[in-house]
Amino acid sequence: MSSCLREKLNVIISQVDEVDSSLADEARAHLDNLTKPLGSLGRLEELAVKMFVASGGKPPESDPARIYTIAGDHGVNAEDVSFFPQEVTRQMVENFLAGGAGINVLASTAGVELIVVDAGCMGGEFPDHPHLIQRKIGCGTANISLGPAMTEEQCLKAMLLGVELADESFSQGIKTLGTGEMGVSNTTPSTALFCAYFDLDPVLITGPGGGIDAEGVIRKAAVVKSALAANADVVASGDAVSILTALGGYEIAALTGLILGGAKNRQMVCIDGFISTAAYAAATRICPVADSYCVLSHASAEPGYAGVVEALGGNPLLHLDMRLGEGSGAALSMFMLRAAANIYNDMATFSDAGVDSGSSNAG
Amino acid sequence: MSSCLREKLNVIISQVDEVDSSLADEARAHLDNLTKPLGSLGRLEELAVKMFVASGGKPPESDPARIYTIAGDHGVNAEDVSFFPQEVTRQMVENFLAGGAGINVLASTAGVELIVVDAGCMGGEFPDHPHLIQRKIGCGTANISLGPAMTEEQCLKAMLLGVELADESFSQGIKTLGTGEMGVSNTTPSTALFCAYFDLDPVLITGPGGGIDAEGVIRKAAVVKSALAANADVVASGDAVSILTALGGYEIAALTGLILGGAKNRQMVCIDGFISTAAYAAATRICPVADSYCVLSHASAEPGYAGVVEALGGNPLLHLDMRLGEGSGAALSMFMLRAAANIYNDMATFSDAGVDSGSSNAG
Repeated sequence: MSSCLREKLNVIISQVDEVDSSLADEARAHLDNLTKPLGSLGRLEELAVKMFVASGGKPPESDPARIYTIAGDHGVNAEDVSFFPQEVTRQMVENFLAGGAGINVLASTAGVELIVVDAGCMGGEFPDHPHLIQRKIGCGTANISLGPAMTEEQCLKAMLLGVELADESFSQGIKTLGTGEMGVSNTTPSTALFCAYFDLDPVLITGPGGGIDAEGVIRKAAVVKSALAANADVVASGDAVSILTALGGYEIAALTGLILGGAKNRQMVCIDGFISTAAYAAATRICPVADSYCVLSHASAEPGYAGVVEALGGNPLLHLDMRLGEGSGAALSMFMLRAAANIYNDMATFSDAGVDSGSSNAG
Repeated sequence: MSSCLREKLNVIISQVDEVDSSLADEARAHLDNLTKPLGSLGRLEELAVKMFVASGGKPPESDPARIYTIAGDHGVNAEDVSFFPQEVTRQMVENFLAGGAGINVLASTAGVELIVVDAGCMGGEFPDHPHLIQRKIGCGTANISLGPAMTEEQCLKAMLLGVELADESFSQGIKTLGTGEMGVSNTTPSTALFCAYFDLDPVLITGPGGGIDAEGVIRKAAVVKSALAANADVVASGDAVSILTALGGYEIAALTGLILGGAKNRQMVCIDGFISTAAYAAATRICPVADSYCVLSHASAEPGYAGVVEALGGNPLLHLDMRLGEGSGAALSMFMLRAAANIYNDMATFSDAGVDSGSSNAG
């Protein structure tokens, strides 16, 4: 069963196209001909180029855009690593469906659709809701400080759920995906994943997450260390899927699949904050070329994020000291992708507008 | 005449209210009761608090929002300090009115109105246009490297034009103003203003503006030095209005007035990039309490900007390597103000949503 799922995943990975980087010159030539000083729209121009290249040379289109906020619970919550009690995962899913959470407000402000997915919350099914997809892989993961979070079959199922979400969105015309998550204690598995993938010290990367105090952070770092020890063989193997299985979570694995599926479909994927970046780290360890379709939406204020981004070699778009998760930073960056696409498509050229493009005799 | 205008300006300045900073606690208490970890929306929460305080304690409202992009020409252009020829000021005004410029696209993407103002372009009147206000104070300023840019009467007229624009917008229900500008060579007077207000070295603050090369930057720094020397008495006087008169420009003075007028009306004012920040520096030297109504929209990629922001003690919202001007960064930050206001007004509280607000026994 598990090997059949792994085969399925390998097919997906093989379908993620390497982009043709030479297309970047074409996009830049177009941007340089628009009525503005060369390069003066900075990161927006960079985004437009990335979108042009990712699409294989089509004018950038970022809309319609959709965020999948995927929820799951974590066995490691038993180690007292979170400010919020475990019930909050479920309560927040209900809050998402009632429209009262941060991600509801920011998705709506940005003109982006929000779909909530239960990939592994504790407790039973939720009442049906038009914006909820119920695909529980399990009722919370196992405690990573004692052993693997998931079986390989569970992890692969969660990843393939993410691919399926990307494919469904693609068939519905969605151009940009946003990653969102909800899962009490999920900064702990994320931290463990970063440490495993990039050989980082838990003490340097562990932070307060939802709001634990300094003593709690020390305890949490020790729990991450235990998780790395309890799964030492897998960590040593370096196999990215096995590491995700051992140290991840249902929502993190599903987001990894969403990223891979989006990349396969040549959709842009806006990566949210700390936890989503763990899924991004997994996805790009599993399939490096997927990176061409991803945008790091914002620099999380979670203290370990800076070290993670350095290890990743990334350059997040927004710096707003946010650390909410849920897809909140992705929602804001989707607005920036829209701005970038509109710049590319709607600005006048120097010749069309009758604007002098600058003289070589000056300066 | 000039003393009568100065009296008028003084009345405006006296009407800018100092905010009641204690209101910040009330806003923070509200935000802390919303379903999110404490402070986890970072700069958005900061913006919401600022808006709440600026309004005197009302729930933040950022819309409708309007950018005034004010154009003017500069006598110092004769010193070969710009990549673009002077005609481009006029050509870009026409481009704004035709809808083809960066600011058109970004204002439209952000759902913000754009009004173009001719405060001092070379050449004659423009054909009438519903989005154009023609209030030419003069046909380009005098060359600051030889003496003052404007007479005091001209500068005060430009400032009062800005106040009038703010007042008109206020009477039309506009909650947020954005500053925009167009004026070939206007990084040169802006640089001179920064040097005069903050005693900065022209060599450290002068940059390429629209795109001059390294040799051009050296020449431009020398021109700024000449401007400071030619207006040394005024600079030494420390009088903020006189310095603006000597080293500014029509659009810069009008934006200074727009900021002061907005502050008087308790409107929020989104300050754009390098040139708008020169107007902001003037406005806050003239009337320090105006700062409570202003948001530095983004960190300009113009190299001198970092030193300027350090001197100002500011903290720009966005970091997108942009250096277009026109109000482009203000348009993007207006989206962030909307997001902040919506967070404040539309998120559920812990008790309303039935979400546990976190336990003291964890962490």
